[in-house]
Amino acid sequence: MRHFTRIADLDVTGVAAILDEALAWKKHPPGAHLAGKLLGMVFFNPSLRTRASFEAAMLRGGGNAIVLEVGSGVWKLEDRDGAVMDGDRPEHIREAIPVLGRYVDALAVRTFGALQDDTADAADPVMNAFRELAGVPVISMESAREHPCQGLADLLTIRERFGVTRKLPVTLTWAPHIKPLPKAVPHSFLLTAAAAGCEVRVAHPPGFDLHPAVMAEAQDYARRSGGSVSVTHDRKAALSGSHVVYAKAWGPVTEKAAASEAAARIAAHKDWLITSRTLAAAARDTVFLHCLPVRRNVEVSDEVLDGPASRVIDEAENRFHVQRVLLDKLLEGTAC
Amino acid sequence: MRHFTRIADLDVTGVAAILDEALAWKKHPPGAHLAGKLLGMVFFNPSLRTRASFEAAMLRGGGNAIVLEVGSGVWKLEDRDGAVMDGDRPEHIREAIPVLGRYVDALAVRTFGALQDDTADAADPVMNAFRELAGVPVISMESAREHPCQGLADLLTIRERFGVTRKLPVTLTWAPHIKPLPKAVPHSFLLTAAAAGCEVRVAHPPGFDLHPAVMAEAQDYARRSGGSVSVTHDRKAALSGSHVVYAKAWGPVTEKAAASEAAARIAAHKDWLITSRTLAAAARDTVFLHCLPVRRNVEVSDEVLDGPASRVIDEAENRFHVQRVLLDKLLEGTAC
Amino acid sequence: MRHFTRIADLDVTGVAAILDEALAWKKHPPGAHLAGKLLGMVFFNPSLRTRASFEAAMLRGGGNAIVLEVGSGVWKLEDRDGAVMDGDRPEHIREAIPVLGRYVDALAVRTFGALQDDTADAADPVMNAFRELAGVPVISMESAREHPCQGLADLLTIRERFGVTRKLPVTLTWAPHIKPLPKAVPHSFLLTAAAAGCEVRVAHPPGFDLHPAVMAEAQDYARRSGGSVSVTHDRKAALSGSHVVYAKAWGPVTEKAAASEAAARIAAHKDWLITSRTLAAAARDTVFLHCLPVRRNVEVSDEVLDGPASRVIDEAENRFHVQRVLLDKLLEGTAC
Repeated sequence: MRHFTRIADLDVTGVAAILDEALAWKKHPPGAHLAGKLLGMVFFNPSLRTRASFEAAMLRGGGNAIVLEVGSGVWKLEDRDGAVMDGDRPEHIREAIPVLGRYVDALAVRTFGALQDDTADAADPVMNAFRELAGVPVISMESAREHPCQGLADLLTIRERFGVTRKLPVTLTWAPHIKPLPKAVPHSFLLTAAAAGCEVRVAHPPGFDLHPAVMAEAQDYARRSGGSVSVTHDRKAALSGSHVVYAKAWGPVTEKAAASEAAARIAAHKDWLITSRTLAAAARDTVFLHCLPVRRNVEVSDEVLDGPASRVIDEAENRFHVQRVLLDKLLEGTAC
Repeated sequence: MRHFTRIADLDVTGVAAILDEALAWKKHPPGAHLAGKLLGMVFFNPSLRTRASFEAAMLRGGGNAIVLEVGSGVWKLEDRDGAVMDGDRPEHIREAIPVLGRYVDALAVRTFGALQDDTADAADPVMNAFRELAGVPVISMESAREHPCQGLADLLTIRERFGVTRKLPVTLTWAPHIKPLPKAVPHSFLLTAAAAGCEVRVAHPPGFDLHPAVMAEAQDYARRSGGSVSVTHDRKAALSGSHVVYAKAWGPVTEKAAASEAAARIAAHKDWLITSRTLAAAARDTVFLHCLPVRRNVEVSDEVLDGPASRVIDEAENRFHVQRVLLDKLLEGTAC
Repeated sequence: MRHFTRIADLDVTGVAAILDEALAWKKHPPGAHLAGKLLGMVFFNPSLRTRASFEAAMLRGGGNAIVLEVGSGVWKLEDRDGAVMDGDRPEHIREAIPVLGRYVDALAVRTFGALQDDTADAADPVMNAFRELAGVPVISMESAREHPCQGLADLLTIRERFGVTRKLPVTLTWAPHIKPLPKAVPHSFLLTAAAAGCEVRVAHPPGFDLHPAVMAEAQDYARRSGGSVSVTHDRKAALSGSHVVYAKAWGPVTEKAAASEAAARIAAHKDWLITSRTLAAAARDTVFLHCLPVRRNVEVSDEVLDGPASRVIDEAENRFHVQRVLLDKLLEGTAC
């Protein structure tokens, strides 16, 4: 594996292999498997879990990490080809990326989409520039299109609770918010759950469709993994018999809603708040997942987050466990 | 010791034990006593000495530290229970704290008080949320109520100079400033000096009392340590025979001064500036201490800070020496 | 070597020795030569390459680094002697510098000039305060007067390409920009190239002279190294036969242009943009260098940066290679 910035880099068999190894290492930690390795972490957007869990994975593995926050301690970066750089961005990624690649053994990158055009975001231009220019392996800490480490942590949490994921009914439900959020997390849960063979049900209000290219990719994984993917606007129907309720806020389809109207379109569906009544429509042993951060009582009520079905803290811990496996694979064979 | 966020976690005997060990380790460094240990450092407020001295203590001990600045590279955090989170704080400490606790062996936290209500600050809500929710040991890098590592560093500096602290006359004197500052540092010097058996004299203008609960706690320590605590508005009387002059600015009692009036109340006492004449009223061998940062010629004159009585740089160095002992005790027995 | 903040700390023989060792270590990395060493990195201004390359040098050498960003996670610092500190800078460098020196084995510092007075900047007050007050070795990550690690990385890149630097014709050419930039980088290229014996040609528009004290220092190095230094406003003449084209934007002489007029003076010379036609005036085997960040199509055209003559990424990589040698020399003999 050269890079890991999308579930397609693993495919169906790779997802299963990473989850197997993460489960094994969670029981028997691997020791200093990253000794002498150096990870460069580049943040175009802020982070809590991602930053702490990646740094912890490097440091506990005996390696080290350098944290660079673009636009804070570090220059803002231009990413448009051919730009006459007379604005507020004094450096181009065509220099910044290969330079950083010379100092480290791999680069981890966080970059959000612009949320102006779903198709532009799904094309993932900044992350793909890193793949092209870094000269070292690149791992995603969330990009415009996907957040694949989150998807793997989600599925690890499900594996731990239910043992098998094949044919397991799981529901990804849209949740309200105060503003449009990226689709990277729902994309990655969908893709990873489909690759893991789940019966994935996606429930959202009209006009909040996930990107067609991602949907098609998920259908392909489901076909080959023994899973399935379906979409509905009827959340209650989706929840029936679901063993997992995965809540996430995301913005409307950009073609259907100018950025200025997006907030209003979201506000029209406050009744999609996840409460204990929502969970009651799912299977009795259902677990509740959310990638965090979560806006309490806007997306999800206190009673769900603090209740017995919630696995959100375990889910966040599992970021660490999948990432140490991924970093091990990426850094294998790089020079010390 | 499960947590260390207040002098009460050590009590009289614990304070003496930490100082003894810090003196011993300052002469004979302990080597890689923190090998394999990982500290998460969470800053709600900025820091120089604290950050550098904690990181240095972990790294020189063979361990590692992750630095997270809330509201800068990291999301702003909500801390009110039951909040409908529709404002500018996208994550709640009820998620953030336990998640961070999953990645590290201990958490170090800096959080200032709101300075609107002394009693609310003395109740230390954010720090106590960390104690409750972290799942790993918590150490204070200053909170609304106390800055206990500073208090220990202060007393270590006094021990080094005078050998014994029992019955030693020391004066904690209020100093002018351009704005109200928290009471955590004077609280901690008072508590630690009382626990170390000093004859503590607190001098401040009327209306600048330290919190009654902290005063009562200090009186209790003094009773059991052979020390004493007295308060006066007559600084010159307090200084007579004092071997330590400890200067610090802090805000007025919140009940007595609305936040809007606090600055004016402070400005009325510019004559409390510490100068060489102030020091002349103390014992001939007196040493001058201040926790830093210090506003030169507003709190303390250049001649005092640059003069022979000043021990402020040694005092700051001693942060490192007490913290390495505390981190050792906190991390003992945590999993590698 | 006690400190390294200017080429004068190395002199002619020292420059050659560092380049020799950096070439050797680039082929045969030195292993954990910095084990147990701790570097404090203090940034008054932002950084990408510098921060990543210094951290990488410490970590790959088996040491560690603490990163402190003044004015962001760290207090703003006052540097005026005798100041009544009633403004927005709560701490003085007279405390901050020696305190930091107590926690680490060496300090690395980045501080830009104020760009209001060339002579004040060339006197390098903040960096010299670090030299005076740190109590540990100090290394420059760029200051008001020089960026000596950049100069050494530049010359290492030239050594790698051409083998010898003595009598090698190289041109330092001014480049356009949207605003006045510091002169530290052109100063350091000039000084290092002169110390390495190059035939240095400086080309800039009238009114953009480098500082006379730096010019005189460069002439002295050239005299002793067998090199030469000349200045011209005729770039084409300078380029003739040059094997290196080194481009950099900098501001006008402050005596000749009030800060408010500086941008207009720069804008008058947009024709100094470096394009492939510019390079065609140099030797056929010429290489193109720039310290980065570079504003594409303002300073240098895309075709040059992406073309075969460019060595800017290698040049940035070489920051790492010269710095690991310098850090080794500085930290030799400091306590573990």
